[in-house]
Amino acid sequence: MSYFDAASAVPLHPVARQALWASLDEGWADPARLYREGRRARMLLDAAREAAAEAVGCRPDELVFTPSGTRAVHTGIAGALAGRRRVGRHLIVSAVEHSSVLHAGEVHRAGGGSVTEVAVNREGAVVPSGYAEALRPDTALACLQSANHEVGTEQPVAEVAEACRAAGVPLLVDAAQSLGWAPVEGDWSLLTASAHKWGGPSGVGLLVVRKGVRFAPQGPVDERESGRVAGFENLPAIVAAAASLRAVRAEAAEEAARLRELTERIRARVPRLVPDAEVVGDPRRRLPGIVTFSCLYVDGETLLHELDRAGFSVSSGSSCTSSTLTPSHVLRAMGVLSEGNVRVSLPPGTAQEDVERFLSVLPGVVAGVREKLGAPVSAAGAAGVDGGDGVLVVDAVGRRCPIPVIELAKVIGDVPVGGLVRVLADDEAARLDIPAWCEMRGQEYVGEEPADRGSAYLVRRVS
Amino acid sequence: MSYFDAASAVPLHPVARQALWASLDEGWADPARLYREGRRARMLLDAAREAAAEAVGCRPDELVFTPSGTRAVHTGIAGALAGRRRVGRHLIVSAVEHSSVLHAGEVHRAGGGSVTEVAVNREGAVVPSGYAEALRPDTALACLQSANHEVGTEQPVAEVAEACRAAGVPLLVDAAQSLGWAPVEGDWSLLTASAHKWGGPSGVGLLVVRKGVRFAPQGPVDERESGRVAGFENLPAIVAAAASLRAVRAEAAEEAARLRELTERIRARVPRLVPDAEVVGDPRRRLPGIVTFSCLYVDGETLLHELDRAGFSVSSGSSCTSSTLTPSHVLRAMGVLSEGNVRVSLPPGTAQEDVERFLSVLPGVVAGVREKLGAPVSAAGAAGVDGGDGVLVVDAVGRRCPIPVIELAKVIGDVPVGGLVRVLADDEAARLDIPAWCEMRGQEYVGEEPADRGSAYLVRRVS
Repeated sequence: MSYFDAASAVPLHPVARQALWASLDEGWADPARLYREGRRARMLLDAAREAAAEAVGCRPDELVFTPSGTRAVHTGIAGALAGRRRVGRHLIVSAVEHSSVLHAGEVHRAGGGSVTEVAVNREGAVVPSGYAEALRPDTALACLQSANHEVGTEQPVAEVAEACRAAGVPLLVDAAQSLGWAPVEGDWSLLTASAHKWGGPSGVGLLVVRKGVRFAPQGPVDERESGRVAGFENLPAIVAAAASLRAVRAEAAEEAARLRELTERIRARVPRLVPDAEVVGDPRRRLPGIVTFSCLYVDGETLLHELDRAGFSVSSGSSCTSSTLTPSHVLRAMGVLSEGNVRVSLPPGTAQEDVERFLSVLPGVVAGVREKLGAPVSAAGAAGVDGGDGVLVVDAVGRRCPIPVIELAKVIGDVPVGGLVRVLADDEAARLDIPAWCEMRGQEYVGEEPADRGSAYLVRRVS
Repeated sequence: MSYFDAASAVPLHPVARQALWASLDEGWADPARLYREGRRARMLLDAAREAAAEAVGCRPDELVFTPSGTRAVHTGIAGALAGRRRVGRHLIVSAVEHSSVLHAGEVHRAGGGSVTEVAVNREGAVVPSGYAEALRPDTALACLQSANHEVGTEQPVAEVAEACRAAGVPLLVDAAQSLGWAPVEGDWSLLTASAHKWGGPSGVGLLVVRKGVRFAPQGPVDERESGRVAGFENLPAIVAAAASLRAVRAEAAEEAARLRELTERIRARVPRLVPDAEVVGDPRRRLPGIVTFSCLYVDGETLLHELDRAGFSVSSGSSCTSSTLTPSHVLRAMGVLSEGNVRVSLPPGTAQEDVERFLSVLPGVVAGVREKLGAPVSAAGAAGVDGGDGVLVVDAVGRRCPIPVIELAKVIGDVPVGGLVRVLADDEAARLDIPAWCEMRGQEYVGEEPADRGSAYLVRRVS
């Protein structure tokens, strides 16, 4: 098996395993106690905090450990919003944040706060002016990820932090995807991260709140973790998290260069090996290990299943692989194709042979799925219905992605250049994928109209 | 070293260690993913949930894993209160709950809810009628621990659950101290527990919500743990927690009998070995491994320090060992002596020799601390000031416990039978310890009056 889903979770780093093992014996007691076992636990906790703070680039007393990255985000956003309640209740987030940030935003909105989502470009990056324009006198907090978890695009954190700083607004940076590679640059105010993303154990997140940032922890707290995170510390895991962060950092420069070469190879080869495939995300400002692409006329779930059978574990932002039946909010915000979406995220240590094997297997897997779905091999004609007004109608109501796009592709050759095709569809993914198909194919996307069921998408044949 | 603070945390059970180790390799991936590593993680998670549910005596889909027992309590109370907001905002807790329950109650009160604290008797137990009387038409939730964490007293959960059930009010049981020994009996509605109390790893709690109980999770959630606990599951620790719960249960009956004998021995011997010591908590309805006693004329911090030097790790509910400078709320609610308080909680496997050694060391340690503090050895006379009204005044303002009680004991022989001593003190512990001393010494506690600084405590010599 080749595990290519490091953006979701990385297998335990050997140093994390060693540290965890050692601290099971030394660090099980309550660090708040005065006796020997407690003092020993306290020393381990203090040392872990110092190591983690050094890797983050903050003071140890600015950093607390949380039970997960998600919990760090929830605690950080709630505390920062409450700390500046007098200023106002406006929150700024990017449209491509991790769901933990967006969920916190939803709760804030439900509680009467307001949320502005800053748009991203087609590469998945915000522009700093987007944040500058969103800032208001009542803005309590802005949030921006250091790099995107689905497409790997790095965000202009330092510039956004500067704009926020100028307005006196704290910036919370979700550094979950990048902290293992390097500290986050720029003058941010709060930072969150998750140990199992860098090869630490699950059960540990980080929340950093810079001195001087107003912060009012919400919900019940106790005397632990500076009164910011209630409950007995998960000490062996915390020790393992800090030790492994230090270890991965020591290997980061070399490993980043190596993985970047491998993902560069995937970026370059996939469009050549797989017809009608589009690589998404910023080609330069990106994380070393993540590459994401989408394949026309393929459904994500079948593709993942077939890749799994072939020995590759990847993830997908396609709608049909999620329980919500809507495509990933990241791909949607970028306005790129979501069908047949594959995220390859290489864990440190990935062998070049495994990547080569993936590239050799992928074309056949995609072709097999397309064949099963009856995707257009070339410009072969297919059935359509003349709507009576010279417009060819494709009725894909009740059909899931990628069928609406496949049906559109089949009939586009049947209308004359300048002619129209109307695709009727009620799958949410069609709204994203039909315009994306037009862009890829050089056809004109005219627009969307309401229909009896779902929507009608109008496409004009250009070539 | 003999570690006698199992009520705080128990060293990792060998089965927990094995399970943790095995699942570091098998359970690091995201159980929400469709590929092989994800499916394997999901199977481990499902199996752990089934094992834990069986040990609790509930359905697997009623049980979720939380990052700690504290978090289970906070999540459970907030969700249950919100689920019954239409009924009202009244919460009932016992006066001796774990601080996590009381903290949740404080947050509820700060948010406009009302909280009733049910009193306990001198043994630390509630009486079921106390809950029955506290129930109101607007009661949303009642909480009761299965057994007390400081004195080991078991609570009449089944009877209280019955009273609550009759009123249609859900009962949340904090089973942190007892779940390793046995399932909680009675018709409770919600249950919480903490793995590191039974020899599982830290970082895992349980929250059980019976089918049919209204529950509205508060704060941001995601698709994990039935939408009740957000964030990546701490899977290896969860597996270890479930495996060790099953393992300790298999050994529970035998080990309970053994520990009960050891604590029974401590209960019986301490008052004989140490003059002016009082064992607190229910002598029969109690946990097998916990015994708590208080020693007059001793301060808890020095006592703990000296016991630590002698090789024993215990905890204390004395004021001087906590940062708040108030005695444990449990001892206060029971109205028992807090000075020189020691909680001995034996972990499974404690050797009888270690207990014997503790009993042989304790008298000397207590005597040493008393000597240092100048405690009255017998009824030796000491300095006092006649207040002018025939009342002897002891000024202990600015002196920490146990000094006010020591000074009182020194002068009580100087007043005639029927005469009064007025102790001036501003240490919070005096409010509890002076009446407790009177009870132990057969003197009459007359009452408390406000004074320039702190309070004046009036004591009449009876014998």
